[in-house]
Amino acid sequence: MPTPEAKKASYHHGDLREALIGAGLAILAEGGDPAALSLREAARRAGVSAMAPYRHFADKDALLAAVAAIGFSRLTTALTEADAHEDRLEALIRQGVAYVTFACAEPALFRLMFGSTIGEKRGDLATVAAAAYAMLAERIRSLVAPAEAEIWALRCWATVHGLAALAVDGQLANRGIEPTALADRVLRLPGSMPGF
Amino acid sequence: MPTPEAKKASYHHGDLREALIGAGLAILAEGGDPAALSLREAARRAGVSAMAPYRHFADKDALLAAVAAIGFSRLTTALTEADAHEDRLEALIRQGVAYVTFACAEPALFRLMFGSTIGEKRGDLATVAAAAYAMLAERIRSLVAPAEAEIWALRCWATVHGLAALAVDGQLANRGIEPTALADRVLRLPGSMPGF
Repeated sequence: MPTPEAKKASYHHGDLREALIGAGLAILAEGGDPAALSLREAARRAGVSAMAPYRHFADKDALLAAVAAIGFSRLTTALTEADAHEDRLEALIRQGVAYVTFACAEPALFRLMFGSTIGEKRGDLATVAAAAYAMLAERIRSLVAPAEAEIWALRCWATVHGLAALAVDGQLANRGIEPTALADRVLRLPGSMPGF
Repeated sequence: MPTPEAKKASYHHGDLREALIGAGLAILAEGGDPAALSLREAARRAGVSAMAPYRHFADKDALLAAVAAIGFSRLTTALTEADAHEDRLEALIRQGVAYVTFACAEPALFRLMFGSTIGEKRGDLATVAAAAYAMLAERIRSLVAPAEAEIWALRCWATVHGLAALAVDGQLANRGIEPTALADRVLRLPGSMPGF
């Protein structure tokens, strides 16, 4: 147990890992560039020494991967909630809008998840990223012939990812309409969705 | 005229500006991160003093904007060439593939052009960016009703930009097919293009 004089925070095993990930998420939410997120700053925010993070993360990339994994979990949750509609096509459109909404709400996290700051996705990160994609792909499999499902999933992903990337990079500003409302309009155009 | 002993290169008026932009393009082509491109390094490559660039560029952002402007000119040229097909729909599909091809060939330049490294596009940069978009928008106006042209242009842009962004960020690797070939398949799906 820490003495009352302890200057640094003390964590139960595992809690420090969560605290550091939380600090990373907070830095990104404040508009931080993923490339600028450091183990040192995460440690400072968690109230531990600069060396303490190394008990949980081998390097900065390991922390970034853990933060990105939380991002993919949140995205999967958002897509799952949006998918809860009895009309399958409507469910797919709502997933697309939810994807853009997620990116606009957490632009730095979105950039980290899909950008090239983290190299190849490994282990847990690849698994949670695949889970997010599976939400979209599964809905599409309910709408098109099996042989076409894969290419259709990519088409839908490309369209919503394009809208999200353009929105996050400020390319959809000055259109007099919010990016999410614009995404809703785009995704309801004939042909935007399979079988529609 | 420089003496044979001159250590630094000498440029006619205007030529130094071109040389610095050329150096910036070369740095990006070598895989450089736009954020890491500096006036100092551009000056070093052009063989002039670290202060010389300031005759032409107020700061690094001004050089980045000039480099991005060349990127948009090149993209417009690529789209114009791809558009030269008698079938209007085929012309649009080829523009889309050309967009992805451009991004894959010059990923760092593509990121600079559409990313958030440069703030708001001003003056010349806004003009050349609009010219690239106009190539796509004009072809789409030849294919859909006037009232729908704007939203359709955004739909097509989002799809090809999404494919390009995913390809540049390595998200389309391990599919056993080149991103440009994948783009060609995606853009030939029913509904990918207006009136198709």
